[in-house]
Amino acid sequence: MHKDTFEPKDILAAVDGSFTTTDALREAVLDRLCAGDTQPVQGFFAAHHPADTANFLGALNTDEICEILRLLRLRDRAEVFGYLPEPLQIDLARCLGRKEFAAIITEMSADERADLFNRLSEEQQEALLPALAQAEREDIRLLSAYEEGTAGAVMTSEYVTLPPDLTAREALDKLRREAPDKETIYTAYVIDAERRLMGVVSLRELILAGPGARVANLMERNVIFGSVGDAREDVARKIATYDLLALPIVNGNDALVGIVTQDDAMDVAEEEATEDFHKVGTVGRLATGLKDAGVSLLYRKRVLWLVVLVFGNIFSGAGIAAFENTIAAHVALVFFLPLLIGSGGNAGSQSATLMVRALATGDIRLADWSRMLGKEALVAGALGLTMAVAVSTIGLVRGGPEIAVVVSLTMVLIVLVGSLIGISLPFLLSRFNLDPASASAPLITSIADAAGVLIYFAIATALLPIPAA
Amino acid sequence: MHKDTFEPKDILAAVDGSFTTTDALREAVLDRLCAGDTQPVQGFFAAHHPADTANFLGALNTDEICEILRLLRLRDRAEVFGYLPEPLQIDLARCLGRKEFAAIITEMSADERADLFNRLSEEQQEALLPALAQAEREDIRLLSAYEEGTAGAVMTSEYVTLPPDLTAREALDKLRREAPDKETIYTAYVIDAERRLMGVVSLRELILAGPGARVANLMERNVIFGSVGDAREDVARKIATYDLLALPIVNGNDALVGIVTQDDAMDVAEEEATEDFHKVGTVGRLATGLKDAGVSLLYRKRVLWLVVLVFGNIFSGAGIAAFENTIAAHVALVFFLPLLIGSGGNAGSQSATLMVRALATGDIRLADWSRMLGKEALVAGALGLTMAVAVSTIGLVRGGPEIAVVVSLTMVLIVLVGSLIGISLPFLLSRFNLDPASASAPLITSIADAAGVLIYFAIATALLPIPAA
Repeated sequence: MHKDTFEPKDILAAVDGSFTTTDALREAVLDRLCAGDTQPVQGFFAAHHPADTANFLGALNTDEICEILRLLRLRDRAEVFGYLPEPLQIDLARCLGRKEFAAIITEMSADERADLFNRLSEEQQEALLPALAQAEREDIRLLSAYEEGTAGAVMTSEYVTLPPDLTAREALDKLRREAPDKETIYTAYVIDAERRLMGVVSLRELILAGPGARVANLMERNVIFGSVGDAREDVARKIATYDLLALPIVNGNDALVGIVTQDDAMDVAEEEATEDFHKVGTVGRLATGLKDAGVSLLYRKRVLWLVVLVFGNIFSGAGIAAFENTIAAHVALVFFLPLLIGSGGNAGSQSATLMVRALATGDIRLADWSRMLGKEALVAGALGLTMAVAVSTIGLVRGGPEIAVVVSLTMVLIVLVGSLIGISLPFLLSRFNLDPASASAPLITSIADAAGVLIYFAIATALLPIPAA
Repeated sequence: MHKDTFEPKDILAAVDGSFTTTDALREAVLDRLCAGDTQPVQGFFAAHHPADTANFLGALNTDEICEILRLLRLRDRAEVFGYLPEPLQIDLARCLGRKEFAAIITEMSADERADLFNRLSEEQQEALLPALAQAEREDIRLLSAYEEGTAGAVMTSEYVTLPPDLTAREALDKLRREAPDKETIYTAYVIDAERRLMGVVSLRELILAGPGARVANLMERNVIFGSVGDAREDVARKIATYDLLALPIVNGNDALVGIVTQDDAMDVAEEEATEDFHKVGTVGRLATGLKDAGVSLLYRKRVLWLVVLVFGNIFSGAGIAAFENTIAAHVALVFFLPLLIGSGGNAGSQSATLMVRALATGDIRLADWSRMLGKEALVAGALGLTMAVAVSTIGLVRGGPEIAVVVSLTMVLIVLVGSLIGISLPFLLSRFNLDPASASAPLITSIADAAGVLIYFAIATALLPIPAA
């Protein structure tokens, strides 16, 4: 690890993964590059995982990254490149020469290559294609045809297939020959002459079997598979449910066309959870991480919902205006307004959060609606009563017994209505094939606010004495 | 698959994974059991993935499940049992005999076994231990010693180790011999006499190497590893970052004590995301899924925060009470109250959601605070101005030019303050080693509400004419 060329503390920082924040290391590397002293830099990066190297390079400018990438061995270069964020990859495509870029892209895994290709400008794509070999051109053409967000778009074509009549020994020989070009050799797929999926066999089973055993007798015939058009989150969930290393993907003719590996499924699951998180917080889909998102991108992703909610709140305002006389006669009612409508919104966001996540993880299905609604009514009733007790004491102190009754009664109703809205909206959205995660806390809050204002002042007007205007 | 014994539509429902909802199938299975016609039932379950069988069994009562489990081969029985929800496993432990239960638990993977054992009552544990073999007893003792939520508590002890001086052929022989008892044989760990981790070698590399090559020369020496005390979400993140099939875990003496596999990491990541989701929605940690959670459990998990927020809202009420004269003089101000404080809360929850998720996925670290705060001020300022324009038109129509000025000015300030609270609170919590996800939308909303009331009426009192009381 060339301990003599960098400060020990830098090495230490590098080893525990936090070295992206040590500016000292960045300067040390750049100093050596300027001085033409490339060997220690090369050694330093060779000793690190490509993910760490990529993380470090992310803090440098494009020219510096190009220079360091050129110092690495081609295979490492492609691996590091694959771990860089996509916008940076596209910038680098410009700064690296066409041939250099083609060499890197050839070494990348088939799915990463197709993803990157899809994001290049048409001009860049046209410049790149002639520099690639026939096999890679064909692969890109096949993989980049699928719509984003589908199984087709995340799958890779680098898997091993076996005919059913091979022996275990022959199958192992084939795996060994093809290993260098395949994403995984731990699961092999048995197909017929039309590439239809007949079974799946693991390397573990092939190794344990006698050398003369037939693949057809070793393979598992009840294969769990996905289709190219499946949503990528469904594929990820299947891999998690069945603890698979990879899921085979078939096309409309039941022919095997790719696999989705577990590590890609894990990335998909994380991205989908982040997207749901942001939706629940009424933030639009960010293509980059929050750290790299610019001010104007963040503004655009947030402003829409905020303005929609402003206009949504007009209903609450209109509700209040309708009860102007009641308010003028009992200004003390206003003290409890934020508390009451806030509580309805809070209870509603709780229900919506539970429901959105349960629908996303598959814990709850559409058919469970009526059961969940009944349960929610019980839970919300109990919550409303508890909160009514809490608020009645405040009501007594601040507004007297009449106000306390109005406020307590309102609390029970508001929590019940808010919760039932919160639990129903995700179901309704899901029913109409919309994303349940759009039933965000702020949306629920706005609806619960308007309902709450009406409930509160209607009860107050009915129970409290109002002098003629 | 005994197509003749069940209705074709049931088989179809079973094949596409939705058969838990077909009551017809449930009845068909139970009917045959009552009639003593067990063979088709046996065949039916043998043809399905254990995860699907477990999913189906979840809808039956404990006695029915016991009866069906007894029909399966021991290996299948243990696998199906492992996929059942934990509370059900514990119920079954009572209904199955002690010997039967011991046989199942012996067949389970080491990490699942230790988890289950930890959740049994002391009485059940004591009854079970003598029925287990020495090896399993030892395993349980080792694995169940670690605190929940740590790497130690999710790791398994079923991995393959190699001494460095073996040849590739000898290593392959060892893998083959040990394969039946190990969770994975695709990654083997090279250790010295003190079990210190020297390197890692994949089955792929062993297969590709010449039979005489030494493990010491094949292994990767820069091993990425975790420690028993690491938080389980950090371990899951490491596996995702470096695309590992398994992560080796070492104890305080650097000795290898276990591995965490990718499929367990995926489950951990999903559970952690769900927990964060619920926290952001101010719901406490649910040990079961939402579907199985009872009314009283849901009540308990939700009531605490709701009541806390009721008392938090006293501040907003007190703020309003302090400005009673201003409100009495300009009742129109009340129309805009829900809108203004709602907007502050909405902008704040957006910021908090973005920040909580970015901290959880590792996109943002504590050191990035000042940079994020500056960016947030710019974004929030722009959002506030946009919303002020939207609200000023409503203000003009409903309250006249003076009210419009007060409302617009308040909007800019409220959105700015709400956003800065939303972005800072997760950082602050994280700084003091609390979970940033506690900075939930309702908490942010309550704080933003109180701040909003003060800002609103302070501006109104300063700018509007108030008649002497």
